[in-house]
Amino acid sequence: MPKTYTIINGPSLSSIGKREKMIYGSTDIHTYFKTLLERYSFEFHFCSSESEIIECILSVTAAGIVINPGAYTHTSLAIADAIKAIDIPAVEVHISNIQSRETFRRVSYVSSVVKGTISGLGLHGYRLALEALESITKPK
Amino acid sequence: MPKTYTIINGPSLSSIGKREKMIYGSTDIHTYFKTLLERYSFEFHFCSSESEIIECILSVTAAGIVINPGAYTHTSLAIADAIKAIDIPAVEVHISNIQSRETFRRVSYVSSVVKGTISGLGLHGYRLALEALESITKPK
Amino acid sequence: MPKTYTIINGPSLSSIGKREKMIYGSTDIHTYFKTLLERYSFEFHFCSSESEIIECILSVTAAGIVINPGAYTHTSLAIADAIKAIDIPAVEVHISNIQSRETFRRVSYVSSVVKGTISGLGLHGYRLALEALESITKPK
Amino acid sequence: MPKTYTIINGPSLSSIGKREKMIYGSTDIHTYFKTLLERYSFEFHFCSSESEIIECILSVTAAGIVINPGAYTHTSLAIADAIKAIDIPAVEVHISNIQSRETFRRVSYVSSVVKGTISGLGLHGYRLALEALESITKPK
Amino acid sequence: MPKTYTIINGPSLSSIGKREKMIYGSTDIHTYFKTLLERYSFEFHFCSSESEIIECILSVTAAGIVINPGAYTHTSLAIADAIKAIDIPAVEVHISNIQSRETFRRVSYVSSVVKGTISGLGLHGYRLALEALESITKPK
Amino acid sequence: MPKTYTIINGPSLSSIGKREKMIYGSTDIHTYFKTLLERYSFEFHFCSSESEIIECILSVTAAGIVINPGAYTHTSLAIADAIKAIDIPAVEVHISNIQSRETFRRVSYVSSVVKGTISGLGLHGYRLALEALESITKPK
Amino acid sequence: MPKTYTIINGPSLSSIGKREKMIYGSTDIHTYFKTLLERYSFEFHFCSSESEIIECILSVTAAGIVINPGAYTHTSLAIADAIKAIDIPAVEVHISNIQSRETFRRVSYVSSVVKGTISGLGLHGYRLALEALESITKPK
Amino acid sequence: MPKTYTIINGPSLSSIGKREKMIYGSTDIHTYFKTLLERYSFEFHFCSSESEIIECILSVTAAGIVINPGAYTHTSLAIADAIKAIDIPAVEVHISNIQSRETFRRVSYVSSVVKGTISGLGLHGYRLALEALESITKPK
Amino acid sequence: MPKTYTIINGPSLSSIGKREKMIYGSTDIHTYFKTLLERYSFEFHFCSSESEIIECILSVTAAGIVINPGAYTHTSLAIADAIKAIDIPAVEVHISNIQSRETFRRVSYVSSVVKGTISGLGLHGYRLALEALESITKPK
Amino acid sequence: MPKTYTIINGPSLSSIGKREKMIYGSTDIHTYFKTLLERYSFEFHFCSSESEIIECILSVTAAGIVINPGAYTHTSLAIADAIKAIDIPAVEVHISNIQSRETFRRVSYVSSVVKGTISGLGLHGYRLALEALESITKPK
Amino acid sequence: MPKTYTIINGPSLSSIGKREKMIYGSTDIHTYFKTLLERYSFEFHFCSSESEIIECILSVTAAGIVINPGAYTHTSLAIADAIKAIDIPAVEVHISNIQSRETFRRVSYVSSVVKGTISGLGLHGYRLALEALESITKPK
Amino acid sequence: MPKTYTIINGPSLSSIGKREKMIYGSTDIHTYFKTLLERYSFEFHFCSSESEIIECILSVTAAGIVINPGAYTHTSLAIADAIKAIDIPAVEVHISNIQSRETFRRVSYVSSVVKGTISGLGLHGYRLALEALESITKPK
Repeated sequence: MPKTYTIINGPSLSSIGKREKMIYGSTDIHTYFKTLLERYSFEFHFCSSESEIIECILSVTAAGIVINPGAYTHTSLAIADAIKAIDIPAVEVHISNIQSRETFRRVSYVSSVVKGTISGLGLHGYRLALEALESITKPK
Repeated sequence: MPKTYTIINGPSLSSIGKREKMIYGSTDIHTYFKTLLERYSFEFHFCSSESEIIECILSVTAAGIVINPGAYTHTSLAIADAIKAIDIPAVEVHISNIQSRETFRRVSYVSSVVKGTISGLGLHGYRLALEALESITKPK
Repeated sequence: MPKTYTIINGPSLSSIGKREKMIYGSTDIHTYFKTLLERYSFEFHFCSSESEIIECILSVTAAGIVINPGAYTHTSLAIADAIKAIDIPAVEVHISNIQSRETFRRVSYVSSVVKGTISGLGLHGYRLALEALESITKPK
Repeated sequence: MPKTYTIINGPSLSSIGKREKMIYGSTDIHTYFKTLLERYSFEFHFCSSESEIIECILSVTAAGIVINPGAYTHTSLAIADAIKAIDIPAVEVHISNIQSRETFRRVSYVSSVVKGTISGLGLHGYRLALEALESITKPK
Repeated sequence: MPKTYTIINGPSLSSIGKREKMIYGSTDIHTYFKTLLERYSFEFHFCSSESEIIECILSVTAAGIVINPGAYTHTSLAIADAIKAIDIPAVEVHISNIQSRETFRRVSYVSSVVKGTISGLGLHGYRLALEALESITKPK
Repeated sequence: MPKTYTIINGPSLSSIGKREKMIYGSTDIHTYFKTLLERYSFEFHFCSSESEIIECILSVTAAGIVINPGAYTHTSLAIADAIKAIDIPAVEVHISNIQSRETFRRVSYVSSVVKGTISGLGLHGYRLALEALESITKPK
Repeated sequence: MPKTYTIINGPSLSSIGKREKMIYGSTDIHTYFKTLLERYSFEFHFCSSESEIIECILSVTAAGIVINPGAYTHTSLAIADAIKAIDIPAVEVHISNIQSRETFRRVSYVSSVVKGTISGLGLHGYRLALEALESITKPK
Repeated sequence: MPKTYTIINGPSLSSIGKREKMIYGSTDIHTYFKTLLERYSFEFHFCSSESEIIECILSVTAAGIVINPGAYTHTSLAIADAIKAIDIPAVEVHISNIQSRETFRRVSYVSSVVKGTISGLGLHGYRLALEALESITKPK
Repeated sequence: MPKTYTIINGPSLSSIGKREKMIYGSTDIHTYFKTLLERYSFEFHFCSSESEIIECILSVTAAGIVINPGAYTHTSLAIADAIKAIDIPAVEVHISNIQSRETFRRVSYVSSVVKGTISGLGLHGYRLALEALESITKPK
Repeated sequence: MPKTYTIINGPSLSSIGKREKMIYGSTDIHTYFKTLLERYSFEFHFCSSESEIIECILSVTAAGIVINPGAYTHTSLAIADAIKAIDIPAVEVHISNIQSRETFRRVSYVSSVVKGTISGLGLHGYRLALEALESITKPK
Repeated sequence: MPKTYTIINGPSLSSIGKREKMIYGSTDIHTYFKTLLERYSFEFHFCSSESEIIECILSVTAAGIVINPGAYTHTSLAIADAIKAIDIPAVEVHISNIQSRETFRRVSYVSSVVKGTISGLGLHGYRLALEALESITKPK
Repeated sequence: MPKTYTIINGPSLSSIGKREKMIYGSTDIHTYFKTLLERYSFEFHFCSSESEIIECILSVTAAGIVINPGAYTHTSLAIADAIKAIDIPAVEVHISNIQSRETFRRVSYVSSVVKGTISGLGLHGYRLALEALESITKPK
């Protein structure tokens, strides 16, 4: 049975909880996702290339997407175009508060094509995004 | 008994659900808060002036703040300074996706002084912010 | 009986005709409005705070608004949002020619949400704005 | 006997009321001017070239000028220089609200050399400009 | 008998010496003003709203003003306009060195309308400003 | 016995009181310093070259520096670097209000490396700077 | 019988093939158009003034326009407005590759109001534009 | 026998004619290319990654290249460098008129390294580009 | 016999010496040229349109050009292109010092395509330009 | 036995010495590395994709990295993030002097996360980088 | 007897005619000045430091100054301030056409404080400047 | 016998190893140069003024230059012009990584006129620069 949601992660996110703990916290992202799976139905991907993310987006069949494009957030117009090309609601997540970091991290090509954005709330951002998708995608 | 959280809203937010439904949706914000109160302990304020918001922030005794400064988000440095001056975690909420609107709405003085930001997810943003605060403020 | 129009003035405008006559002329604004009342039906407000202006706008029941936000013209997004939130036609007036003054006075948040703008024509601007409203609001 | 005022129009304005009615309205500008002539004494010109407008300005002998330079508003420094070179009060008119259109239409070389500007009030702008000139040019 | 000078403070300044001591030092501003009153004749105000500051400025009858608009320094054109509207010499004070903080704190609307500016010298800035006013306002 | 403070002046400042009196006033700077020496212990330098100022800064043994780099304020990174390289508190002085002059005079490389800045208060700025240094450098 | 298409050329284009051959090539534009006339039905204009181009555009009765506004491409808003005012599809042609020349040649007011743009392909650009118009204007 | 030309397409272009028909039209790109192959000799590629496009360019042995880098047009300097590194003439094609879309789509790294650019003419752009290459590459 | 040089003047220059004497001086330009003709062989033109100037440039047969494009200096790329298209040395003249006037007068499209520029030296600029041309064009 | 250092090269660098010799010189990079291996212990990679470089960086076990990201230098934030994520000193090398080429090549995301940068010194840059790493990584 | 004029040259100008002949020509500046001295009364200076130029300006007693600040033109505010501080008319000369070189050479601090500027006319610029000074300084 | 190379240092560099050790390290630059002299033949200069550096450059007779202009790197066009004026290869050295410091330190006038740049590698940068010069200047 297909999972209800798809979580797509950009480069370096696989090591969250292991490196640069000052910025990203010390919870292991894999452990976190395991816990999350107890409550939500989703599959997840860690992609290190832009094209992998794009292909991932274009082949999604789930009811909603949670996307954290990592560093590509700020440079990839192609990822934004891919999200725009499909008809599935997406929520953007950033683990750290990108508004309080370097200036070039304040520009997001992705933000304008998603339903909404959650940033700075650590790994909880993923859970909140799934909840948001539940609200958005549930039949009214 | 003091409420656990405080929600502070900027100008015009009181009429959410009544005007400009295309942008902000048609759910009445007061009804929504009433429902939310069944599950979360919070008090809320609708302030139409910058100084009212500032005084509100400076007098908060709750464990966490949810703030939606409305149009002041993009012009008020004084509100950001007030948040920075206190020691209580704050989460910024925007009902609409400010990144897909006018350019001047993409600048937020507040974003860099809060824990995190949730935007574009409608009134659900408030609930998600309260949940985020619960995660942040609960004893570990 | 409610007045047909509402004139809303920002800070410092109450002293027009008394101070800085080089820029704003020497006709007393109160005297001018008195004369104007012989011909047009309107009420008027002098507000020194941004929130007072906002509340004034949101509570208008007249057929049209003449607004001179003074210095807030160039800094208040919240006032512009308030005008956008209501359905009443508004005309922006500036006593001096804001295009021939300092650079930061050339940006107007308000201009893009009103019907039209009249600037540089002194207190006559108010009369012209009322006439414009008459043309706009009269049944065709 | 010479006319009291001169109205100078830039390119494309002659067809107001016939094309792009969404932006400029459906009243024929020639019909409008005919009606206006019943009350005000003026001559008017429709010029499609920048130099025609300049020569028109430099040869004006009327008591005041109403000028709508159309697209030249935003690109012609030479027209602004011509207005500055003469001693006759001028009022700038724009039929549509130039502040709510494309960014490059927000710059006006002309605004800083005229008495005042009226924009966004449709063809009424011309009438209001003539009235403004009457106030400005009448003996005190 | 009216005080010789008026000190006007913007939002958050009332708590100087109590919060954010790293930036603003640990001397209590109220204690400091008390000491200062032994030597200088002045009244002082702590205003948390922009309009309160404006009204304060417009009603000053003292011989000189010391103004620290806090965060409004960088965003309030209306306060600058109010200072320009009166004929009383003003000196701007900033407790911290605003040039060595965030970029947006380097712009001051107020600086260009006051006699002079003193910044970065802590609470001493107030005393120096009063001395400067004494030099400026004493009969020659 | 070494002087307590050092005042370093940039080019053209030696003729203050003699030229451009409209901007800088008519008090002779040498006379002023003579009077000031009655109350404060300091030596002073008038340097017309950037390197002279730098060498002056690097060889200071006094307890504090008052520096008015004149036109170099806005162009010399090397002077700022020299101030940063030493451990002696410095106060920047500008005779005229640099914020109300040409745009390029609003940038100061020096402001971010000194304790504080005093500008627009004429020659009094030097006295206030010495007082500020006294407060800063006195044993607590 | 009216020609099917109209080619409108801006200033200096008449001498293509005679001057500045390094940039524009050595084929004579008149000879080229003669050859082109064997296959396509069109009339063509060489206009050296902005207003001539505008009048030319506004009086077109052909099924499509090929326009090369030369240097006016980058400075004339009035030409763009004229194209926008009519209902005939237009294709913009540039003989040289304007993207690989000076920066100010990269801005084109015209590009956003035409169907499409062909640049850098020499005189062939005209033929390609005519073919494009054939595809666009042929009945489906 | 090697094909005469190579068409290289960036991400998402493979679905032209199936998605976002408002912007890109409803003709299937594969069907279109099949028709085109009846008249021109070429091979074509759909690449979803930047590096795939680069490798494709660097290995071309055809007489000319038609390239539509899609979203990479505006962000990939590496693709531009690859085109510059080879000696084969290239023509850039964009299906939609990139000048009338978002601002960031107006910058093209590729435009300055190709022979010429064709944009806004739909799938016809590919045919026109092949014709342009025929003119450019045919022996004189 | 053809004149040795050609002087081309832009709009409004014909009235130099009659209007705006504060900026341009009170010497009549026609009188000045008459005197100049006693010593130099030249013809001169006063053109009020951009295209007239362009045609004038393109038809020059003299050994050198003196050009004062007036307000077109700052806006006309087409005039610069015309100068670049011919092989005759040109010297640009401005009567007033364009660097000490408004910011937009500091950009000159013409400056980069002429031999040299003379500005701020009043009508003498024309004589100096003719002398410069004599030096440049005389056989060595 | 693992190599002491790792050299990572971006796209197109593999053909250094074969193409664009004017910019990059005519020494074959493979021959050069062979010679270099006689003296230094390192492995090297030529990657044409961004993700390949990222994976390469994240899996490095050597004592130091020499990185020449080619065109990705100026566009890839993800590569910079990868370098920042690991704890191994890196030196950036550019064969040509990127400061004397196009403006967009002057921005380097990578420069701020490496120890240092060597540019413009041709293939020698690699040798110098290895020497620099030897100095940095040798036990003190 | 004091010379009538003073010519002040910035760094590197002493070698004009010996180095970089492509840009500055091959006439020796010393030989040129010798010839010029046959007709004009002037002294000249070659200064390699900014302060030497400033001191030179401040001590001038001649009737007029010709100044070529070389590279300092674009970076020295202090030289501009020195010219502004004295009451002697100055003419700025540049041997090459600074408008057709690098962008940063188009900004001149000096241009706005001199009478006029002559650039691009080679060493003749000096002679023309002296002639201009003769016109300006001769009694009327 | 003349030294093979010349090392030119800007202001404040003489104290490297003594002050601001956090940024520049704790090795004494004089000691370092002494060690370096055992292997390379060079003379070195510490100049605190811009003109001293310029004169130093213009009088060099060595085979190559190593230059570290310190703070002048970012502000002195005159130094860059001097390097360009001579025919001796130069390598720029910066002890700290200027790309990871303040924004204004990222602009280097010098970088575009030297062979190459080495930055961020501490005092080793000097040795690497000498090696680079050896490679560049050795007969092939």
